[in-house]
Amino acid sequence: VSAGAPQAPLVWVDGRAADSVPALDRALHYGDGLFETIACVGGTPRLLPWHLERLTQGCDRLGILRPAIADIEAEVRLLARGQERAIIKVLLTRGVSGARGYAVSGTERAKRVTVRYGWPDDDAGASQDGVQVRTATLRLGENPHLAGLKHCNRLEQVLARREWTDPAIAEALLYSRSGRLVCGTMSNVFMVQNSWLRTPRIDLCGVAGVMRRAVLAAARHAGIDHEECVLGADDVAAADELFLTNARIGLWPVAAIDGRALPVGPVTRRLQVSLGQLLEGSLHG
Amino acid sequence: VSAGAPQAPLVWVDGRAADSVPALDRALHYGDGLFETIACVGGTPRLLPWHLERLTQGCDRLGILRPAIADIEAEVRLLARGQERAIIKVLLTRGVSGARGYAVSGTERAKRVTVRYGWPDDDAGASQDGVQVRTATLRLGENPHLAGLKHCNRLEQVLARREWTDPAIAEALLYSRSGRLVCGTMSNVFMVQNSWLRTPRIDLCGVAGVMRRAVLAAARHAGIDHEECVLGADDVAAADELFLTNARIGLWPVAAIDGRALPVGPVTRRLQVSLGQLLEGSLHG
Repeated sequence: VSAGAPQAPLVWVDGRAADSVPALDRALHYGDGLFETIACVGGTPRLLPWHLERLTQGCDRLGILRPAIADIEAEVRLLARGQERAIIKVLLTRGVSGARGYAVSGTERAKRVTVRYGWPDDDAGASQDGVQVRTATLRLGENPHLAGLKHCNRLEQVLARREWTDPAIAEALLYSRSGRLVCGTMSNVFMVQNSWLRTPRIDLCGVAGVMRRAVLAAARHAGIDHEECVLGADDVAAADELFLTNARIGLWPVAAIDGRALPVGPVTRRLQVSLGQLLEGSLHG
Repeated sequence: VSAGAPQAPLVWVDGRAADSVPALDRALHYGDGLFETIACVGGTPRLLPWHLERLTQGCDRLGILRPAIADIEAEVRLLARGQERAIIKVLLTRGVSGARGYAVSGTERAKRVTVRYGWPDDDAGASQDGVQVRTATLRLGENPHLAGLKHCNRLEQVLARREWTDPAIAEALLYSRSGRLVCGTMSNVFMVQNSWLRTPRIDLCGVAGVMRRAVLAAARHAGIDHEECVLGADDVAAADELFLTNARIGLWPVAAIDGRALPVGPVTRRLQVSLGQLLEGSLHG
């Protein structure tokens, strides 16, 4: 395999190599499922306990019968072994219902699809120099019942991602219907205002990212004032620093938004150091 | 097969008998697809042109490469043949993307899952006597980009349907985040106020049902004043008559909402006659 050539993903279904799922699975028909995207570095899945915790909480909130988390953990660790850098996606569906329609019996058996992908090449320099982002036209619908979950209803993200094709743009910022800043299509967003670190509350929509959680923990550890709060377009316009996070990218500074240049500032740099230590500890702890 | 025993559904994938789909299909991961639920009566799919029209429009709005609609039409007609009463569901997914993530290449090949189900037993008497409905606690998120589409992001419907288990309750009415009446979990809703027929606009959320369209056409034909408009809880409280529609049930009067009895009124009865004629004509036209 030459450097940069995409590795074909490895797919397991319910713990065995497989490439298909039942055509009546509820995730296929209704997006009735949850997923985790786990970065593996040096053969170890990063922040795995937090991924598993969110998956468990998601099952409880959607009423999906909780699978044996120890089995998932063992599987992810097995698939990560020997991988210098890889992405493991765990997709958990509600499975197949006996009858047609939205109703669930409560006895559906969850199905697990685990996919290991190669690490993409797109982030050379992004952590150092920052990335360009745009503002999405699409606004996210608000529903507290789904907020925070990494569920499989992702058409809004698909449509927002279709708004641009310019490869120089790394991400789009999304607002919700009522005008709140929420997240990127695949990331959480933070800003620095007068040395305060702020990130949108995830109470109406958006995913409560594990890297978001790690950054908040890193800020606490570094003694940086921080809060989760309601933020809008005015806050973005007035931000001194802006950055994006997700499980794979870690922390990407925003170097420009809609063409307006932003400095990669001191709080961002301090957080990168603190976050790096936290992630390092998570791999070896 | 004894009367009432559920018939095992027949499944085709891309025109052939099959029971599975690729584990990397985007509908499984993101709900990135569309579907139609088509009632077949006397061997003929009902309102098929309108189903295919909505599917086509949905593909255009989501940017899914339009499949050959003639193939889908032929398949549905073939599977309907000889079926006195059956439900045919056509699920069209965006297919598999080359890379992980929300981005689409635009060249994904749509995948088609067609399922034929037996007709459920639950509606004996519902058209005549009406059904009991409740008001859902969950409120639908609002997103004009998705409004009207019968897309595969249906977690809100799944959660709303999980709010009750009493088999005497046939459906729940859903409001949107801003307080607008929208639809049921699996149906559209109409009301009669001072002889006017009114149904919620489907501009912020909800599915633009084919039976909703048929009822509006039947009202036009019967000379009943009607409009699509913004409706709220006060309108429901003041409604003289209330009814539900979908492709399978046709028109179900609401006999009680949250325990408050409603008469099955004269406009509902006139519309049932007019709708019956329209559906009869659609089968033989």
